[in-house]
Formats: sequence, structure tokens, C-alpha cells
Amino acid sequence: MQTDRATSAPLTPTVVFENLQAFQRTAALKAAIELDVFRAVGQGPGDVASIARHTHASERGIRILCDYLVVIELLQKVDGRYQHTPSSAAFLDPSSPNCLASIAGFLSNPALREPYEHLTDIVRSGRTALPGEGSVEPENPIWVLFAQSMAPMMAPLAGPLGRVVLDGRGGPMKVLDIAAGHGLFGIEVAKQNAQAHVTGLDWAPVLRVAVENARKAGVQDRYEMLPGSAFGVDFGGPYDAVLLTNFLHHFDAETCVALLNKVRASLKPGGCAATLEFVPNEDRVSPPMPAAFSMTMLVTTPAGDAYTFRELADMYTRAGFTNITAHPVPMSPHTIVTGRA
Amino acid sequence: MQTDRATSAPLTPTVVFENLQAFQRTAALKAAIELDVFRAVGQGPGDVASIARHTHASERGIRILCDYLVVIELLQKVDGRYQHTPSSAAFLDPSSPNCLASIAGFLSNPALREPYEHLTDIVRSGRTALPGEGSVEPENPIWVLFAQSMAPMMAPLAGPLGRVVLDGRGGPMKVLDIAAGHGLFGIEVAKQNAQAHVTGLDWAPVLRVAVENARKAGVQDRYEMLPGSAFGVDFGGPYDAVLLTNFLHHFDAETCVALLNKVRASLKPGGCAATLEFVPNEDRVSPPMPAAFSMTMLVTTPAGDAYTFRELADMYTRAGFTNITAHPVPMSPHTIVTGRA
Repeated sequence: MQTDRATSAPLTPTVVFENLQAFQRTAALKAAIELDVFRAVGQGPGDVASIARHTHASERGIRILCDYLVVIELLQKVDGRYQHTPSSAAFLDPSSPNCLASIAGFLSNPALREPYEHLTDIVRSGRTALPGEGSVEPENPIWVLFAQSMAPMMAPLAGPLGRVVLDGRGGPMKVLDIAAGHGLFGIEVAKQNAQAHVTGLDWAPVLRVAVENARKAGVQDRYEMLPGSAFGVDFGGPYDAVLLTNFLHHFDAETCVALLNKVRASLKPGGCAATLEFVPNEDRVSPPMPAAFSMTMLVTTPAGDAYTFRELADMYTRAGFTNITAHPVPMSPHTIVTGRA
Repeated sequence: MQTDRATSAPLTPTVVFENLQAFQRTAALKAAIELDVFRAVGQGPGDVASIARHTHASERGIRILCDYLVVIELLQKVDGRYQHTPSSAAFLDPSSPNCLASIAGFLSNPALREPYEHLTDIVRSGRTALPGEGSVEPENPIWVLFAQSMAPMMAPLAGPLGRVVLDGRGGPMKVLDIAAGHGLFGIEVAKQNAQAHVTGLDWAPVLRVAVENARKAGVQDRYEMLPGSAFGVDFGGPYDAVLLTNFLHHFDAETCVALLNKVRASLKPGGCAATLEFVPNEDRVSPPMPAAFSMTMLVTTPAGDAYTFRELADMYTRAGFTNITAHPVPMSPHTIVTGRA
């Protein structure tokens, strides 16, 4: 909405007011997804009465909710009727192949929002107020929810990651997918190379989601499970490639270096390690989404962070990798970083 | 942050992701206010270590919090040091006379955020899920908190409201301030006209805040209390002016008309009724702050709304007022609407 970047604009307290009430945005988007508002808008005609009928909701509630979604730029209003924006059509209408509304089940889950009630204390102490290791406490059930909910957000990244890792290479190969979660990254490598065998490593309840996805993708006969913690289990190998996606940010640099050392030891000479991360610029305040991700790591982990490329390259180097390269993923806030054993 | 308004920009799910996580903005701003971060930034030099010392907080916590505040445009970062934006200097640094950080105590109060956990059900039913009449249930203690916390947000509006109501008029006059709250509006009229006598009407615990403010302003000998409900008590009078600020939005149009009728009956012929409201444009989706206010009314009241000027003018007309005029308050999202008895 309004900012004071245009220095000629008069100062108003809008930016303060809007940020104090920003929690309403989360609630509104979550409610709209739960009520199937975005499907109703896509089907048209987009008047309050028809959306209310489709969603089995009151006209007062729908009118105010949809007006609010226009204010936060998740819908448009033209001649009194609600229409999709390009973003809501692509990412929020369940009839779109790119719909990722299910991520609301993870990102705005009450259990994941509750820790922010203690943010003042967390900033004081400098670490999560969650018990133990926070979100990376062994067997934390949120990772089953992550695997189930976040797949549509990760799916568009799998193709680019597979191409970076394979780099045109066919033929027999072994791939380890650490913290596999939904499994989509390893599965994509198996789809792109029909002779690749993939081992998914994660806690057992999470791996059940990955195996189900491997079955749906028709690669289950080349998909093996390695249940346990990345820090505890023997990786086996040697591998041609190791995927380490959405994982390093949970830990401090020393822990990352130790893990990368273990990864390198499991790779064939010249094998590829590939991480997928939110990588902010060196200023740590841009681009917005990777930079803001540090806040999630402050609240949910003892010492994690959104690492800059320089920091990640330093970890890789200390773990004995060479040819360390950043591959920004087009149309995505994510960056793939690769190194060679 | 980023939007898809520039249609040439590639589509990314950023707008979905950011709104699902917008609750972090509320938590971050609230924590920064509680930790006194904005005072520390104002005092300089603005490096992580000195802000951490000032706030008795960890360097990891402060670095991540302040970076996040830069992302949401509430601070700037220059050469690794945090600095105020024009807005944060004016409205968030406690050393500024315009600081309104105390409004966080009301706007992001957990008791006021909790109802949004039920927004899906609220949209279905079309009314607050709070018991009884919601936020306007008699003696609801949130109005004491409102009176204590929101005064700095309302103070800049009092001067313009007083000038509109007095319109240059001096001499003896009687003014009724309905739902007086912090009392600042009636008190300002008493300050602008040394012969004005003001009666503040509100629930007794709230009026204690108003009387204390009248004492601080030195007008307590011309300030009377009328404790009770605007719908229940006899207004007395006749008055030269009646103030009805931040009140009509809680009720449906019929209730507003009935109350405005009662107001008109308490006024001298030609006397002025003045409401202060968030008044959205007729499209109900602009400007952002008045338009978004409907959401608060959906969640906290049975039938309230952010009324357009056309709707307010219709209520005034049905209650027998004439000369109905909108006075937008400069540098504020509020509008004063007046009518003559």
C-alpha cells in the first residue's frame, strides 16, 4: 500500500497502522481459501450474491472479505464485481494448475504462528522459544504438514533443480535426497533421467509422503527410503549427486559445514551437491522474500538463518567443495547453489 | 512489497506468500516497540551492537528484527547501519512529539487479534463471533484500553475537528461528546473556546480516562461526566454541538438513524452534529485504510461497517439534519461529517 518513499508525499501514520493490523491479511487470505472464494471468483459472474451462494456464506461477510482482498491486491473490483488479478488466477484459483493455496495450511498454521506471540522474548534471547531444537527437533510433526502442504510451492522449482543437477547427463546414477520432505526434488531427477536411482532421507512419517508422491510419478521402483536424521544415519553411497534442499537455513554455520563435509564424503569425485535456499543479497534486506525469511529462522530455530551466497560459498569451501555456483531460479525467490566434490 | 500491477513483470507467488505471512509484520512491529528499538535507532549510531545494548537484547535477534523492519519499510539500512525512515522518525520514535507507538497496545492486542482465528465462520454467518454485541457489548473493557492507547492517533484529529465544529464561534456554548473515550475531541473544543462547557458521555470506567485528560489540559472545571450508554441515558441539553466520533461504524444503518434522531432532538435549532469516521470511497475498496476498516467491523460487531459518505448523508437526512458536509482531515485517513439540526 502507501509508503513514504515518495518524499514529496505528506507523512501519514498509515504505514504504522497497516503493519500493526497486517495480521488481518493472513486471516483474510486463509479464510478466502477455506471458503473457496477464489474458485467462485474464477467461475464468475463475481457479484456478492453469487459468491455468497457458491461459498455458503453471508453476503455481508463476502462483500467485506472480497473488498478487503481488493485492498491487499489479491482481487480486483470492476463495476462492482470481483475478478481475479493475474496472481490470484494463477496461484489461488483451484482450477489453475499452478494453484498453491494448500501452502496456507502450513504457512498460516496456528501452531506456526503461535511462537510469534513471544517475539519480544525471542529477540532478547536470540533463539527460538520453542522447546529443544525448535522446528528441527527430531520427529517434529510439522514436517509431515510441510511435506503435504508445501509441495505446490516447491513443484515449480523441481524442474530447474533437476536440470542443474543433471546438466544433460543420462545413464545410471545414484542420487541422495536429504530432508526429502514431499520428495519432489529427487523424484524430478528420476523423471528427467530414467536410469537414476534416488534415495530419500527424512524422518519416517515424512518419507511416507515422499513415497506416495514417487508412486504417483511412476518412479517408485527407483525410489528408496533411508529413514532417520541427516546427522545420524550413514548416507551410504557413493552418490553422483546429493540434494540438500530447504535444510541448511535451520542450522548455524559450523553445523552446516559439518553436514556438508559428510555430504562430500558420500559423493563420488566430481559429484554434485545442490542446495536450494532463500539467498538474500549481501545487504540482507533484499529481495524482500529471501531477506524476510531470516525472521522465520529466528523464531523457529536456535541458530539458523537465511544465508547470503558469500556465507554459503564459505561453508562449501570449508567442507572441501569446489566450483561453487549460484543458480537463481527464474520467477521464484529461491536460489540453487551447487558445488563439486 | 512486490505486486503484479506492472503487467510486464513475470508472475511470482510472492504476493500469496507475503500475505500468508503478514502476521509476522504485526509481531515484528510490536516487538520493536516493546524493546524500544526505535528510540535506539534514533539515538544512533545504528549498528547492531549498540541497538542490542540499548534494548538489552541479543545481537542475532536485533540484526534479524531490524533487517525485517527494513524489508517492511519501517527502517532504512545504510552502510550496514539502521536509520529512521521519515515515518518511523515521526510516528515510532518515542522522542517524537507525534509518536503513536502506544496504539500497538490496542491494535495488536491479543484479545483483539484472537477473533480473527474464526474469520471463516464469521464470513459464513456475517457477524462477529464474539458474545453478545461484540465490541459494543456494554462495559466491554477494551474501550478503557482504547481510551488509554489510541489517544496519540486521535490527537492530531482533535484540532481540525474543533475548528470544523466551532467554525470561528466564541462565547458560551454547550457541547456533548458522545462515546468520549479519551475525551480529546471535547477537550479540544474547550481549549479552542474558553467559554465552552463540555459533557463527556461514555461508560464510567472509560470516562475516568477522559476526566484525567481534561485535568491535564486544564479544562476540568468546564468538563462534566455523563456516565452510561449513548442509547440509554438522557442526553440533557439543548446543546450547541454534539460530537459523535468513531461510533456510528459499530451499528447498522437503522440504529445509526435512531441515534442521530436522538442527537438532533438534543441540539438547539441550527446546532451542529459532527461525526468522525473512516469513510471509504463509493467503490468501498479505496483509500486502503478506510476501506480495510470494514474488516474490523465484520469481525467485532453484529452489523457495523465503514460507511461511505453517501450512506452517512442518507442517515443524517433520515434523522432530520440538513447541510450535510464531508470534511476530509488532511494527512489522515479520517473524515469529519457534519450536519445542522
